[in-house]
Amino acid sequence: MNLLIAVSGWDVTPWVERFAALLPDRKVVTLGEPFDRRDVHYAVSWKHPPGSLAGLPNLAAVFSLGAGVDHLMGDDRLPEAPIVRVVDPDLTDRMSEYVVLHCLMHLRRQRRHDAQQRDKVWDAAAHPPAAREVRVGVMGLGVLGRDATRKLNVMGFDVAGWSRSPKNAGDITTYSGDAGLVEFLARTDILVCLLPLTAETRGILNKELFARLAQGGRLGGPILVNAGRGGLQVEADILASLGDGTLKAATLDVFETEPLPPSSPLWSHPAVTVTPHNAATSEADAISAYIAGQIRRFEAGEPLANVVQRDLGY
Amino acid sequence: MNLLIAVSGWDVTPWVERFAALLPDRKVVTLGEPFDRRDVHYAVSWKHPPGSLAGLPNLAAVFSLGAGVDHLMGDDRLPEAPIVRVVDPDLTDRMSEYVVLHCLMHLRRQRRHDAQQRDKVWDAAAHPPAAREVRVGVMGLGVLGRDATRKLNVMGFDVAGWSRSPKNAGDITTYSGDAGLVEFLARTDILVCLLPLTAETRGILNKELFARLAQGGRLGGPILVNAGRGGLQVEADILASLGDGTLKAATLDVFETEPLPPSSPLWSHPAVTVTPHNAATSEADAISAYIAGQIRRFEAGEPLANVVQRDLGY
Repeated sequence: MNLLIAVSGWDVTPWVERFAALLPDRKVVTLGEPFDRRDVHYAVSWKHPPGSLAGLPNLAAVFSLGAGVDHLMGDDRLPEAPIVRVVDPDLTDRMSEYVVLHCLMHLRRQRRHDAQQRDKVWDAAAHPPAAREVRVGVMGLGVLGRDATRKLNVMGFDVAGWSRSPKNAGDITTYSGDAGLVEFLARTDILVCLLPLTAETRGILNKELFARLAQGGRLGGPILVNAGRGGLQVEADILASLGDGTLKAATLDVFETEPLPPSSPLWSHPAVTVTPHNAATSEADAISAYIAGQIRRFEAGEPLANVVQRDLGY
Repeated sequence: MNLLIAVSGWDVTPWVERFAALLPDRKVVTLGEPFDRRDVHYAVSWKHPPGSLAGLPNLAAVFSLGAGVDHLMGDDRLPEAPIVRVVDPDLTDRMSEYVVLHCLMHLRRQRRHDAQQRDKVWDAAAHPPAAREVRVGVMGLGVLGRDATRKLNVMGFDVAGWSRSPKNAGDITTYSGDAGLVEFLARTDILVCLLPLTAETRGILNKELFARLAQGGRLGGPILVNAGRGGLQVEADILASLGDGTLKAATLDVFETEPLPPSSPLWSHPAVTVTPHNAATSEADAISAYIAGQIRRFEAGEPLANVVQRDLGY
């Protein structure tokens, strides 16, 4: 009942230690050492080298070490075993912290206050709109998107959501599909993107989409907040749309290339806020405990939870 | 049934127009014109010149045009008539926007991200604490304080509240009085001050109080957010406490002198965020409608709502 840890770009040692402590009755192996491939029953992956999970005849499940599974889907020799996503309440809370923070920063014109503070300007006439006057649209209504819409709603924003297939999100108005997208964008002042990265969503945040966002809203132009995946956005289109006024501002946690190269004009664009893909980093301890718990419940006869639908890619 | 509008520092004309439209059956007069003092039944004030409301024998009520009434309490010739505060849901929502925004900015180390963006530094290891690991303490549990604690709680913060007299604030742990204050401060990482300004609270945000805040919290030191009144804080103590590490950072919407003078070192202090006393500016239309509604209900025999307790000053 070995557990194979297959990561790239991360130090594997702390993960070995965590799983060895949580599952002391298993042997934990890594790609960098010799092991019997027939003994591997579970694999945990973060950007494993493509093909490195092939030829594991007794593999029962592959666990992603992060919320997204797009890093797995790019491997055309991925085994047939179920792929399990991380659903971590901690990660969900962190994503909502990020989304609410950045929507409030735009609502309350924090960048303008920052500039006024630098210039020692007291602008007492500054009277930002109230949250209820600003329409936030959340793309993606999975666990993260639904939690974000709920908390944005509590803060008073006029919130709606969009997803590929129809979904319920409490009191929030939801739209779905291609037809719903047009209507959703037309009522959206701040677009928050929490979509998974799939073949269908790659590049969805492009100039055609930005041009469909609401005009005449209270913030002086549409605003983009992308905390999903960098592959969802076309950065040349974001820059062009900021330049011609199609977008007023953007907050980006994710990028086409990460780390964001120093040559990117996004770093120094006055209307762009850059964060280093840490909107919702889960604590490693929480992820490890989640995966170990799933393994124990699975072996006790329960079904795996949060299994990815391969045809949809999430 | 005249209405007297008594303001200083503001243009009175739009207020005359608003009340004339809302109460077309009344005569609306201002301090700058001749009027019969016996005909004045209601006064609305924002920082009226002290003494200017004296000698109004038929005055039934004084309405403050803002959330605080400290600007009224400084007038020792204020008539005996009931003083009515503004309680405006819009103002409450705005204050909570401000409080949640600035607590999240501190939680998510937004100032560090800002500096890293300026320097084009991608700090992927940045892993801020979760909201549940950070203890926010709200001083003042009136309408504003209770709404702020509720929304901070939804965002995941570990929230408690303090008020002079014992108060209930939903699921939130509350402390009261001098004894409770010590215990409250000792568990507080981010101190949010929404107290009214009274003789008892003037200067309460001083170095003795800061020294009692929690040590060893997840933010690297205690943080102050004051969105109450400038008179609550001792600015020399804030600067000294930032200098010696008693405070880690401060967000201030209010100041001992407003507008904040260009000579104040708060403007350029790297750990201080300055906003121009606009955390919760109410819309003039909402305030006018609230006061006109109170007058109509009062004349229909209902008691005035939100009357200030003069002995407490709020």
